[in-house]
Amino acid sequence: MMQRARDLDAADPIAHFRDRFDLPEGVIYLDGNSLGPLPKASRERLHQVIDAEWGEGLIRSWNELPGGGGDWIAMPQRVGAKIAPLVGAKPHEVIACDSVSVNLAKLIGAALSLNPGRNVVLSEPGNFPTDLYMIQGQSQVEQRLAERDQMIDALDEDVALLLLTHVHYKTGEMFDMERLTRAAHDVGAIVLWDLSHSGGAVPVDVNGANADLAVGCGYKYLNGGPGAPAYAFVAERHHGDFSQPLTGWFGHAQPFAFSDEYEPAEGVKRLLAGTPPVLAMAALESGVELIAEIGMEALVAKSRALSEFFRECVADLDLDLVSPRDPAQRGSQLSFRHANAYALSQALIARGVIGDFRDPDILRLGFAPAYLRFVDIAEAARHLAQVLETGEWQRDEFATRAAVT
Amino acid sequence: MMQRARDLDAADPIAHFRDRFDLPEGVIYLDGNSLGPLPKASRERLHQVIDAEWGEGLIRSWNELPGGGGDWIAMPQRVGAKIAPLVGAKPHEVIACDSVSVNLAKLIGAALSLNPGRNVVLSEPGNFPTDLYMIQGQSQVEQRLAERDQMIDALDEDVALLLLTHVHYKTGEMFDMERLTRAAHDVGAIVLWDLSHSGGAVPVDVNGANADLAVGCGYKYLNGGPGAPAYAFVAERHHGDFSQPLTGWFGHAQPFAFSDEYEPAEGVKRLLAGTPPVLAMAALESGVELIAEIGMEALVAKSRALSEFFRECVADLDLDLVSPRDPAQRGSQLSFRHANAYALSQALIARGVIGDFRDPDILRLGFAPAYLRFVDIAEAARHLAQVLETGEWQRDEFATRAAVT
Repeated sequence: MMQRARDLDAADPIAHFRDRFDLPEGVIYLDGNSLGPLPKASRERLHQVIDAEWGEGLIRSWNELPGGGGDWIAMPQRVGAKIAPLVGAKPHEVIACDSVSVNLAKLIGAALSLNPGRNVVLSEPGNFPTDLYMIQGQSQVEQRLAERDQMIDALDEDVALLLLTHVHYKTGEMFDMERLTRAAHDVGAIVLWDLSHSGGAVPVDVNGANADLAVGCGYKYLNGGPGAPAYAFVAERHHGDFSQPLTGWFGHAQPFAFSDEYEPAEGVKRLLAGTPPVLAMAALESGVELIAEIGMEALVAKSRALSEFFRECVADLDLDLVSPRDPAQRGSQLSFRHANAYALSQALIARGVIGDFRDPDILRLGFAPAYLRFVDIAEAARHLAQVLETGEWQRDEFATRAAVT
Repeated sequence: MMQRARDLDAADPIAHFRDRFDLPEGVIYLDGNSLGPLPKASRERLHQVIDAEWGEGLIRSWNELPGGGGDWIAMPQRVGAKIAPLVGAKPHEVIACDSVSVNLAKLIGAALSLNPGRNVVLSEPGNFPTDLYMIQGQSQVEQRLAERDQMIDALDEDVALLLLTHVHYKTGEMFDMERLTRAAHDVGAIVLWDLSHSGGAVPVDVNGANADLAVGCGYKYLNGGPGAPAYAFVAERHHGDFSQPLTGWFGHAQPFAFSDEYEPAEGVKRLLAGTPPVLAMAALESGVELIAEIGMEALVAKSRALSEFFRECVADLDLDLVSPRDPAQRGSQLSFRHANAYALSQALIARGVIGDFRDPDILRLGFAPAYLRFVDIAEAARHLAQVLETGEWQRDEFATRAAVT
């Protein structure tokens, strides 16, 4: 397998992008679907923002600085415009701001504003928790949950919004965005796609699917840094009509007029609430630029090749794959069910293979294509085989749960 | 004046803390009330978080790292606990998260949950815009505005929440927190204080005043960096009862159980929504530590001395002070009304004296005590006198408004 891995690496047209990341020694990182690693350019960009823009430019950096840089005021839209082509959106349809959770509250509100008289939000049980929790927090909303195979039947004319996560965080299963969007539109519902496990890893075409709204995460496949700002998409056709409830001053048509009456800015800019987190936004911008430079087509092809190669490497092991077998039907991850998944994940981490565990019994391995090599995949598979063979996962040290699992 | 300034600096017990900041050459920075400067320790801390925690620790940094550091999961509460004593709160009553705007939405919702059956939120015209806008965004809320001298009369049993900014962003006027809180409680209203222009600059004692809720800004006097996370306070007596609408996964009692049903975490932790912005949170923590090290008593004393000294230096100029004359009645700023305030502020900036302008006619000068010297004050006053005397502010170049003013 190792020779085949080396051959695949030699033929990989985006292999050299690995050097653009700062990856720790002795680690095979299969958790880029949870937190992407540090791009070297992001370190440089952060140093520049810290020293030149915050330290030296101070308040002046809200405007463009004479020698370039600054222009903090434009960051949310500028970063959004760079994310847009990665998910099939137009540049002015995406903005970077706040967290996925906070953006969900805004877009649930936007859906209600576009669909007055309806109050049901339909989703699936087992969706990423924050998607469900944010529905539950809105007092005017009624939550309805349906299993995947009953989703279309659960759509009716009470449904204001269908809120689904495109790629399931736990299993990696992918919804057919176009089909579900069409079905929702057939009953007059708005659709909101959570792209957190999709953007930068799988083909996404929000406009091709005629989606209305979307949110996505900045710190997974976009490598924007821990807790990076999220992004939000509103289809252009809704720009004139939607409102959202978190009407902060940065979403005002003229924030620096300091008027008493809220007046929404044009388009997605009205999704802004408070002052953008400049340091975090700069790291996100740098991460997005790198993914855009590599290009989605090459990333998708390699993502599929990596995960298929892993399947090949572990074909002889007794593993219960819960992700779809067809790589076009899943995200950039493979998830395995095992009664001792937590201990397994810890035993792998002790060997330098960092994947993760999802309650109660899922071992989740992510295959971020921007920096992983096929030799990493072969090595990770070898470690997994040894962990299972030796039973070393049964050691006491791997049983104690950490605060964050 | 310059000799007096030098004497005052020589006698200043916290003068040496200036060296803990990285201030640009040739600049007198009177805008720390808008964006605080870069503490040297924050640069070091950010480098460490970028390299050791993100780059090397990766996902493992959510837990405490073996050699120390990491523990990202605890940051919002840890940073909140460090802010708490600066505003008279107990450590477990404050949490750092999101922006002031987003936290206002949460706490308006919290007030309604504590005061069912009422829906009026009372504030004042001319409050900082985002405070009013966030009221206006909540569809179930009725906004009522009253001028300062009619505020207590405007309180009645329809008022769910009195939402005021402790120190006015434009004029620097300070509300009597204790008196207004008592008046609100007399009619059964909850009180929410916006401490954005107070925390780290003036004496604040939320528990002494019996306040219910508060929010504050991280990037002004706390020097947390551009767009730093904000903080939110909920008095302990409400911890068992309040709910808030932005029910994201980080505010769940067991976020990593990934259950479908939202169950709020204990106390202020339920104010969390999405994943905390780690880089921004680290810079805020470092900024707060420095302010805490200097100590509020010394900061308040110097703040008053600096602004009084400025008043003395400009006593002979024809200036229309809109801030209260009694330093105990104002924030750490002096604001002057002038028909050409924008051009004046630009002419000062051209001389290296950075203050700011607030629409339509306010020149605002902030006196952040942690790093300003009395010689800076004397110099700034001298520049202001010259700008007025020479009329250089009338130059065309100072008339064109920048994007951010």
